[in-house]
Amino acid sequence: MTRRPMEFLAHNAATGEKLGAYRDATADEIDAAARAAVAAAPALAGLAPEMRARLLETAADEIMALGDPLIQTAHRETGLPVARLEGERGRTTGQLRLFAAVVREGSWVDARIDPALPDRKPLPRPDVRRMLRPLGPVAVFGASNFPLAFSVAGGDTASALAAGNPVVVKAHPAHPGTSELAASALRSAVQKAGLPAGVFGMVHGASPEVSLALVRHEAIQAVGFTGSTRAGRALCDAAAARPRPIPVFAEMSSINPLVVLPGALRERRDAIAEGLINSCTLGVGQFCTKPGLVLGLASPEWDAFARSVADRARAITPGVMLHAGIQASFDRSVRELRGVEWLTDTGARVARVSAADFAREPHLAHEIFGPYTLLVTASTRGELLQLLGALDGQLTATLHGTADDLAAAQDLVDVLGRVAGRLVFGGYPTGVEVSPAMHHGGPYPASSDVRFTSVGTAAILRFARPVCYQSCPPALLPPELRDENPLGISRLVDGRATRDAIAPGAPRA
Amino acid sequence: MTRRPMEFLAHNAATGEKLGAYRDATADEIDAAARAAVAAAPALAGLAPEMRARLLETAADEIMALGDPLIQTAHRETGLPVARLEGERGRTTGQLRLFAAVVREGSWVDARIDPALPDRKPLPRPDVRRMLRPLGPVAVFGASNFPLAFSVAGGDTASALAAGNPVVVKAHPAHPGTSELAASALRSAVQKAGLPAGVFGMVHGASPEVSLALVRHEAIQAVGFTGSTRAGRALCDAAAARPRPIPVFAEMSSINPLVVLPGALRERRDAIAEGLINSCTLGVGQFCTKPGLVLGLASPEWDAFARSVADRARAITPGVMLHAGIQASFDRSVRELRGVEWLTDTGARVARVSAADFAREPHLAHEIFGPYTLLVTASTRGELLQLLGALDGQLTATLHGTADDLAAAQDLVDVLGRVAGRLVFGGYPTGVEVSPAMHHGGPYPASSDVRFTSVGTAAILRFARPVCYQSCPPALLPPELRDENPLGISRLVDGRATRDAIAPGAPRA
Repeated sequence: MTRRPMEFLAHNAATGEKLGAYRDATADEIDAAARAAVAAAPALAGLAPEMRARLLETAADEIMALGDPLIQTAHRETGLPVARLEGERGRTTGQLRLFAAVVREGSWVDARIDPALPDRKPLPRPDVRRMLRPLGPVAVFGASNFPLAFSVAGGDTASALAAGNPVVVKAHPAHPGTSELAASALRSAVQKAGLPAGVFGMVHGASPEVSLALVRHEAIQAVGFTGSTRAGRALCDAAAARPRPIPVFAEMSSINPLVVLPGALRERRDAIAEGLINSCTLGVGQFCTKPGLVLGLASPEWDAFARSVADRARAITPGVMLHAGIQASFDRSVRELRGVEWLTDTGARVARVSAADFAREPHLAHEIFGPYTLLVTASTRGELLQLLGALDGQLTATLHGTADDLAAAQDLVDVLGRVAGRLVFGGYPTGVEVSPAMHHGGPYPASSDVRFTSVGTAAILRFARPVCYQSCPPALLPPELRDENPLGISRLVDGRATRDAIAPGAPRA
Repeated sequence: MTRRPMEFLAHNAATGEKLGAYRDATADEIDAAARAAVAAAPALAGLAPEMRARLLETAADEIMALGDPLIQTAHRETGLPVARLEGERGRTTGQLRLFAAVVREGSWVDARIDPALPDRKPLPRPDVRRMLRPLGPVAVFGASNFPLAFSVAGGDTASALAAGNPVVVKAHPAHPGTSELAASALRSAVQKAGLPAGVFGMVHGASPEVSLALVRHEAIQAVGFTGSTRAGRALCDAAAARPRPIPVFAEMSSINPLVVLPGALRERRDAIAEGLINSCTLGVGQFCTKPGLVLGLASPEWDAFARSVADRARAITPGVMLHAGIQASFDRSVRELRGVEWLTDTGARVARVSAADFAREPHLAHEIFGPYTLLVTASTRGELLQLLGALDGQLTATLHGTADDLAAAQDLVDVLGRVAGRLVFGGYPTGVEVSPAMHHGGPYPASSDVRFTSVGTAAILRFARPVCYQSCPPALLPPELRDENPLGISRLVDGRATRDAIAPGAPRA
C-alpha cells in the first residue's frame, strides 16, 4: 500500500450536507494498530473473568455517558430516526452487559476434566483438562445499517472482547463520526480498566485496500463482518489465502423467504399483509432479516392477499436511506428487475412473479436492500417445495399457517431447516433477540461459517479455541480447571456436567 | 476430469510385493457417491439418536467380525506390527462406541431454550429454541499412518456419522485393501440399520484430482483430513474457492516441542532420554504427535542428556515404514538437513543445533515424518522463550521440570499455550486419549481450524450447525427441544443448564 491515503467525507444522510473529512488509514497505521493488539493480548487474556466483565460494563456505561451527541451524530450520518437509535443504543449496551454476565458466570469456556485413571489397563489414563482460551486479536468490520449495535461497539466487538481478545475495528465510512464517539467510549473503558491501549483500536477506511490490509495482517487471528456478499467474500478469500489462514465470520446476504399457507390466507390475510409490510419497511427495509420473498399457492385468496399487501405498501412513505450510495443502489436494483409484475409504483415496492419465472431468473433471488419484497406464486405444493429447496442459504425462513396447515407441514419445516439458520412460525423475521438460544447465521451466503452465530451469547464461541492441559500441576492450571472449581462454573467431569469440585483422592470412574 | 483414470498398486510395505491393483475413481463415480450421500442425508438426519447410536455400534461389531484378515491386510499394506494394529482396531471400535454413547446421551446438541416472555416491555420476547443439526455430506480423507483409527472407519467418519451426516471417504492409496475391508463393515452396518446405501460411500484415488473433485463437489458440506500440510492446504484452498465455501478440518503438521528444564535434567536425565526416544520411535516415528524438537539450556547436564538420548537412539532398530515413498522422503529429508551436528548415524536419527542456528534455518522447523528428533540448545532462558514463541502452530508442547522448575515456569506455559493445542507435563505427546477433555488440534499448520479437535468427543462439533426455532408449535419441534425433554438431555433453559422438563404454564424469568 504505497498509494496516497484517500480522503472521504461524512454526509448528512437526509440533506447531503458535508459533516466531516476522514482519510484511509495508512499501511503504517494499520500495522501499528495490529501490533498494539498483539502486545495487549496477554494482559487481556490473563485478566480474571470478573475484571473482564467489568471492562464490558464500563464500556456500556461510557457509551451512555456520551449522551445525546452520540444519538444526534448517528442520526445525521445515517438518517435513522432518533427513537430507533435510542433503542439501538439500548441493544448495544445490553449486549455488552449480557456478555459481561456470560463472562462472569464463566461456564461458556466449556471446561472439561477427565481425571487420571492410574489403574486403567492396558495403560493408565493421564489427567486431561481443557477449556476455551482467546484466539488473539480480532478484526471487526462495522456494518452500515446498525451504526451502534453492529458497528464499533456492537456484537462482534462485545463477543470478541468477552472471549478475551483485543479488537481492531475498521470503521464503516458511512458513519465515521458515530464510530469515533463509540471508539472513544471503548478507549476510555480500556484505560479505566488499567489495560494497555492496544486492547481496542480503530482505523478508518473507505477503500477496500484498508480492509484487506487489516485481514492480511499476520497479527490478526479472526474476523467479524456484516455486510454485502461481495465485500464479505473478498475478506474470506483474503483470509483463506494468508500464509496462515484465519477464520472469518461474515454475515452477508439473505432474502428471508416467508411462506403463507392456505388456511392462514383464509383466516388472517390482512393481518399478515400488515405484519409483512411493517417488517419489510422497518429501518427503510435495511435489515438483513427483511422478508424479501413471500411465497404462496395460486388461489383467489392469494390474489386477494397480494392486493392487500400492495395497498399497504403504497401507503408507506419511505424514509431516508443510510446513504446516497445505498439509495442509488436500491433504485437501480428495482429498475433493473426483469420479468416481474409490479404491484406498486410508489411507497414500498412490491412485485409479483410465478414460481416458474422465478426459477428462470436467478437475479430475482438476489438481496435488494431497501423497502421491497417479491411475491412468488407457486402453482403446486411440489413446486413450492422445490423452489424453497433450491434457494441459497438464508438467515431466516418464516411459515404462516393455521394449526391444520402446520400439522401437514413437516416437509416444509424439513426443507426450510436445511436452507435457513432460524425458522420463524407465525411471526416476522426482523427483530433478532439477543439471548442464549438465538441463532443469527445460516448456510452460505447468509454467513461464511454455518457453524456460528453473530447474535446471542453463543457468538462468543467464534473467538475462542480449546487448549488442553495434560498432567498439569494444579498451580499452573487456569482457575477454571482446578479441582476446587473456585469460579463455581459448570464443567464436564468425566463427560458429566457438574458444578461440583473434584474432591481430593475421590474415587474415579 | 476428462483424463483416463489412473491405475495404482498396493504393495507389501516390508517386501515390496504387489498386493492388488486399484484405479482412481472417475468423475462420474465421485459424482455418484456424492449424490447418493445427499439423497441419504434426510433419512440419517431424521434417525432417532438411539438408532444412530446403534448404527455406530453395529459398525464396531462389523469391524470386529472382519476378524484376522483385516489385521493381516493392514499388516501387509502398512508394515505396522500385528499387535499395534490390534490395538489400533480396539481404538477404532472404541471410538465408534464412544460416539454412540455421546449420541445416546444426547446433550452434545447444545440445546438452548429461551421461553417466551409475553409481558416483557417494551416488546414481548418470543419463544426461541436452538440445537445443533447435521451439516450434510462430509468428505473424509483416510490417513496413511493410522490405517484403522484415522482412516475409513476412523474418528472423522465416526464423528461425522454421529452428528448425523452421510460420509464419502477418499481411501488412502497406501492401504486400499484395508480400506475396502473397513468400508465393507460400514456398508453392512448401514444396510442392517435399514438406511439408504448413500449414508456411507468410498472412492479410491492416488491422484490429487480425485481429492479435489470430491472437495469441490457441491453436495459435500465439510471435509475431514489428516496428512501433509501440502495436501491439506490444497484441500483448504479448493474448499475456500468453491462458489459456496465449506469448512475443512485438516490436521497437518507439527514438530511437538519438548522442553527439559534444568532441575529435571539433574534429577531424571536418563529416564527422560528413554521416554523421549520411545515416543520418537513409536510407530517408526510416524505419529503426528512425535516430539521432533527437544529444547534445553546450555549446561554440562544438557550435554550429558544429549549423549544419553543419542546412546538410546543408536540402539533402536528402525521398523518398516508405511510405504516406500515415506521411507524415501525420510531419507531425503534427513540427508538434506543443513547446519546440524549429527549425534547418531544409525538407529533413530538425532541431531543437535544451537538456538541461534535454528532461528537462522527455517527448514529445521519443518516436520520430518520418521524416527528423527532435533535437540536445540538455548544459551539463555530468554532465547528459549523467543524461539518457542516464534514456532508455527503445534498440536502439542511438552514440559519436563521438577516442582521448583515448574513453579517458575508460568512464562513458558503462557507461550506454549499460545503455540500449541495440548500442553503435556512430565510425559510424552504420543498417545492421544479419546475422551471428552482431549484436544487434538492447534494453530495453523497443526490444524486448519484452531477452534476444533479431531480426537475426543468434541470432534462431533465440527460437523454440526445450529438451527433455531422461533415460536414453533410443539409438534414440529425436534424431541430435543420439546418442553417435556423426552430424551432427558442437559439443556440451557434461560441460560441455565438443566435436565428438567419445562412445566406447562410455569412462571418464567
